[in-house]
Amino acid sequence: MNFVGHHILTVDQFDRADIQRVFKVADSMIPYANRERVTRVLEGAILGNMFFEPSTRTRVSFGCAWNLLGGEVRETTGIKASALAKGESFYDTARVLSGYSDAIVMRHEMMGSVAEFAAASRVPVINGGDGANEHPSQALLDLYTIDRELKHNGKRIDQMTIALVGDLRFGRAVHSLCKLLSLYTSIKFRLISPEALALPASYIESIQAAGHEVIQTSNLQEGISKADIVYVTRTQEERFDSPEEALRYKGLFRMNQAVYTEFCQPNTVIMHPLPRDSRAEANELDNDLNDNPNLAIFRQTDNGVVIRMALFALILDVVDQVDASSRPVNWYTARRF
Amino acid sequence: MNFVGHHILTVDQFDRADIQRVFKVADSMIPYANRERVTRVLEGAILGNMFFEPSTRTRVSFGCAWNLLGGEVRETTGIKASALAKGESFYDTARVLSGYSDAIVMRHEMMGSVAEFAAASRVPVINGGDGANEHPSQALLDLYTIDRELKHNGKRIDQMTIALVGDLRFGRAVHSLCKLLSLYTSIKFRLISPEALALPASYIESIQAAGHEVIQTSNLQEGISKADIVYVTRTQEERFDSPEEALRYKGLFRMNQAVYTEFCQPNTVIMHPLPRDSRAEANELDNDLNDNPNLAIFRQTDNGVVIRMALFALILDVVDQVDASSRPVNWYTARRF
Amino acid sequence: MNFVGHHILTVDQFDRADIQRVFKVADSMIPYANRERVTRVLEGAILGNMFFEPSTRTRVSFGCAWNLLGGEVRETTGIKASALAKGESFYDTARVLSGYSDAIVMRHEMMGSVAEFAAASRVPVINGGDGANEHPSQALLDLYTIDRELKHNGKRIDQMTIALVGDLRFGRAVHSLCKLLSLYTSIKFRLISPEALALPASYIESIQAAGHEVIQTSNLQEGISKADIVYVTRTQEERFDSPEEALRYKGLFRMNQAVYTEFCQPNTVIMHPLPRDSRAEANELDNDLNDNPNLAIFRQTDNGVVIRMALFALILDVVDQVDASSRPVNWYTARRF
Repeated sequence: MNFVGHHILTVDQFDRADIQRVFKVADSMIPYANRERVTRVLEGAILGNMFFEPSTRTRVSFGCAWNLLGGEVRETTGIKASALAKGESFYDTARVLSGYSDAIVMRHEMMGSVAEFAAASRVPVINGGDGANEHPSQALLDLYTIDRELKHNGKRIDQMTIALVGDLRFGRAVHSLCKLLSLYTSIKFRLISPEALALPASYIESIQAAGHEVIQTSNLQEGISKADIVYVTRTQEERFDSPEEALRYKGLFRMNQAVYTEFCQPNTVIMHPLPRDSRAEANELDNDLNDNPNLAIFRQTDNGVVIRMALFALILDVVDQVDASSRPVNWYTARRF
Repeated sequence: MNFVGHHILTVDQFDRADIQRVFKVADSMIPYANRERVTRVLEGAILGNMFFEPSTRTRVSFGCAWNLLGGEVRETTGIKASALAKGESFYDTARVLSGYSDAIVMRHEMMGSVAEFAAASRVPVINGGDGANEHPSQALLDLYTIDRELKHNGKRIDQMTIALVGDLRFGRAVHSLCKLLSLYTSIKFRLISPEALALPASYIESIQAAGHEVIQTSNLQEGISKADIVYVTRTQEERFDSPEEALRYKGLFRMNQAVYTEFCQPNTVIMHPLPRDSRAEANELDNDLNDNPNLAIFRQTDNGVVIRMALFALILDVVDQVDASSRPVNWYTARRF
Repeated sequence: MNFVGHHILTVDQFDRADIQRVFKVADSMIPYANRERVTRVLEGAILGNMFFEPSTRTRVSFGCAWNLLGGEVRETTGIKASALAKGESFYDTARVLSGYSDAIVMRHEMMGSVAEFAAASRVPVINGGDGANEHPSQALLDLYTIDRELKHNGKRIDQMTIALVGDLRFGRAVHSLCKLLSLYTSIKFRLISPEALALPASYIESIQAAGHEVIQTSNLQEGISKADIVYVTRTQEERFDSPEEALRYKGLFRMNQAVYTEFCQPNTVIMHPLPRDSRAEANELDNDLNDNPNLAIFRQTDNGVVIRMALFALILDVVDQVDASSRPVNWYTARRF
């Protein structure tokens, strides 16, 4: 795809070459995210960070990525006070807000809302999550993390084994990741979930149609035993009809150091789209893994910053100007990457 | 008036020369709002964007205008967490907050609150809306839009015919606009509303005392038939005693393309302070007008940015420095103006 | 202490030399807070302003201090939408958020939460208030104000008399201030409160162990009669079991101009951590003192900006670079300091 001036609404937009392009630009952003250098390439540009469904981490991550390119952020963090709550159409909201900024990130609980908004927007829009539908930057940062972690272990995405664990029915991060992985070759999928939270059939069919192997199981130990990547998810209780229903599935699969030691390969990478639910009744990913160097969950969120910087730089066509407007950081920093 | 260091609290502050001054400065801001050039004239200056009554669009518009001049924005978006909710006076709030910023925009639901705040503030304050009372930047952007649209059609504000439609009783945008229009000559006002939502008598008397013609009617077709400008408003349900009462007036007057074609002059300009209520029971301005080039509602919100930039530049005395600190935009942009 | 790269969690970290260091740096920040000069020393740096317990004034003060050093601010203003509300641990939240910014200010209602967060953070964290526990920047700005006000009156903190008035049980500002004052010599403390809201015994013992004089009383007039500083506090109703219980103590001690004139020394300085409760049932510090030049309450909040600038400059190690990246302000300003 041509990124310049385009919306990022769904992972369906990307082919493998696009992904490589995003990853290469993301790599070039590491010195900035890592606070070795500062760039001012977007100085004077404004991001409209429109989170009509509240969020802290994704909102701050996008805002931070924009700031790291030198731009300013205007944002909203709810829907109650918005014109949408007074009966305004997405068309109107988009026409108005796109007059204020150079790019927009939008989150809204309604599936398809961001695409409807983008159709009327006069500036590029990135989907920051539209309900159970899509959250493409999450899928890209997950894939980027898989790519980096496997390379570090001398492996590749093609031919890898990945175990997806937990609520595979409602977890949009898993859905979008499956679509992106389908672009690669001969992956072995291990889908570990209770039957009621299985990955929807359409996703399974697409994966198989792309030539990958799929095994479904409700046995955690069996599913993770040959995995290069174990991707654990939280039960998406907000998508269930009732909290009680969600509670039935919490804590069914618990990854911890003992399970890891007994059943995983050495160097099996553990991922999670976060937040992980650390309350006793859930605890799908135990804190005793925090010192395990293969726990990649915080490298995932760090990677989110460079992936989002890359998307911004690509759609605003400044990739080749980033370094030219840069200088060394002059304050105390802790290294992260 | 002398703008430098002064508050902008009410449209009563302006005479016709002041308005021309604001409009001339607003014109000079178009290249920046249109992302052709970037200026850093207010780099290092801080706006306190204090919305004690929540708002998305007005808040973001002011913040964006300040950012486009190069400054930073600190803001608040509600009253629950504020010291005002713990019994603090406007005097104290103003003394404190004016120590943090170079200018303040304030919205609060209580009439007169912003003036009370401004009296104690050590920095210039712009009224961003104080309940049913005033919202001067909205009136200025409406008038600026009327001026630009009419000029485009070879007409002038003097001698024009303007139809004001809908809730003329509670719509503060209409009230302030009427005051500003009174400064011009021989305007024909067509006030179209149900009797219960008529423009308050004091406004009508002022308009007539300034030599303008006023005709009141509850017949939409008749009222708009000779209009150069049709200014439609939403029923301000939040100002009614009950939602049920407001509902009685929703949908009484519906502008749509069929009505426009049958009853309006060619090039009649359609305006609305937004948000328009697009729900079926209201729908005062139909989406089938969206492709009508005379629908000026999004040019209104775009104009809001340059009007607010102009007010900031005037009160902070940087009008003559804006261009000197400017450079071309170096990222992808969509043209807006 | 060595400030560079360190957290600021409690006033217990500071000795008298540290305090002098902070105050000296704060002095050097006055031209910037006073809008005489602009510095860009932190241009490109990002503050994570994480207020999980909402606040307007402290949040804006920290954000403004960071902006005045040239940096950008990303923030959150509540807990409902945060991952913490979905069962995430402080450890995870800290690991994630510290990947986004160069420093973090955190407020959370739970005692000890900020220290727990800081232990996992990869960037320096400043405690912006953790429930009834600590709020070190408030204590520093109070002490800085006392120092400046007394110097202006030809006095010193050593040997002064300070009256602390009101809710001394729950007021964390008072608690932290007492700890800092203990570092000085031969102070006379007058603790004025109803018995039920007395300063906890542990604080009194520490003060006495440091060689200061403590007199407790429930008589306002007697307590303030020899004071160089009268520090009045609000009843912290949010810390009581019920609003009714808090109400019993509101309005017990009322400082006003008549009391000041009759019982205070000339030049007795009046302070308050703000907000003061100006409702009739409380009104612990009457508005008729607003024109009294010894009312230092707004100088306190102004001082908060330079104290916070100093803390940021110290922990990020840019103290010596501030002036080098500075220039005169080019817009209209009102003098504050």
